[in-house]
Amino acid sequence: MNRECVFCRIIRGEVPARIVLRDHACIAFLDHRPLAPGHLLAMPLTHVTDLGDLPDDLVSPLFGNVKLLSRALDVGLDAEGVFLAINVRISQSVPHLHVHVVPRRQKDGLFSQKLLWKRVPYPDEESAAAIQDRIRRAIDVIQRG
Amino acid sequence: MNRECVFCRIIRGEVPARIVLRDHACIAFLDHRPLAPGHLLAMPLTHVTDLGDLPDDLVSPLFGNVKLLSRALDVGLDAEGVFLAINVRISQSVPHLHVHVVPRRQKDGLFSQKLLWKRVPYPDEESAAAIQDRIRRAIDVIQRG
Repeated sequence: MNRECVFCRIIRGEVPARIVLRDHACIAFLDHRPLAPGHLLAMPLTHVTDLGDLPDDLVSPLFGNVKLLSRALDVGLDAEGVFLAINVRISQSVPHLHVHVVPRRQKDGLFSQKLLWKRVPYPDEESAAAIQDRIRRAIDVIQRG
Repeated sequence: MNRECVFCRIIRGEVPARIVLRDHACIAFLDHRPLAPGHLLAMPLTHVTDLGDLPDDLVSPLFGNVKLLSRALDVGLDAEGVFLAINVRISQSVPHLHVHVVPRRQKDGLFSQKLLWKRVPYPDEESAAAIQDRIRRAIDVIQRG
């Protein structure tokens, strides 16, 4: 745990976030400045900066959850595609390893000049809460198998 | 295995590629139209399209190798940062799940208007071979601990 890290503060419950998943090793919540509605950040509870520093016993818990979240965007938000990304050091806004899991639509322009990393806040709390709820319910459906 | 898939053909040895790592479950080689020299593609030997379809027992082998490759770009190419990405369905040029592992430099403009997904071939075989060799030796150094 890092006292100053905003993600560690979310993990400790000191900063609010729209959490969709939490287990013994990881947490995932809505990015508050999403590339698209439903853009999630998944990360280990342990504070590490680089993927290269992730303890080996956390590789499977973290990326197993990333796989689950990718499916949850399909199931819960009818995503036509998913973009997953990790920025290590460069373009990494918070130095706590996190995986971006972003739902995509055909012709969303994510890789065009205009949209990549152009963040758009949720218009209001209700729309963020509705997206959070759809993803949480999709996770439940998938985990019940 | 998929008869038509170009990545399955590389795995079967029918199409040449500059391989840097191969084990019981995964392969990684140089992207021949890299975002930056040393841009790697890591994937399971098993043909699956979506991350959501990756068998659970391959999550740890694949992403353990992705972690290793990220460190190998640091060690072998003195990367200042690393960009890791998976395109699921949309923007996925080959329908065989693969992880992009791309070395970064400060001010490389990867997320600017001009560079994202603009691929630049290696100027010649010698420069590609030299990059391959540096990454392979870095993997050896890391794996020897």
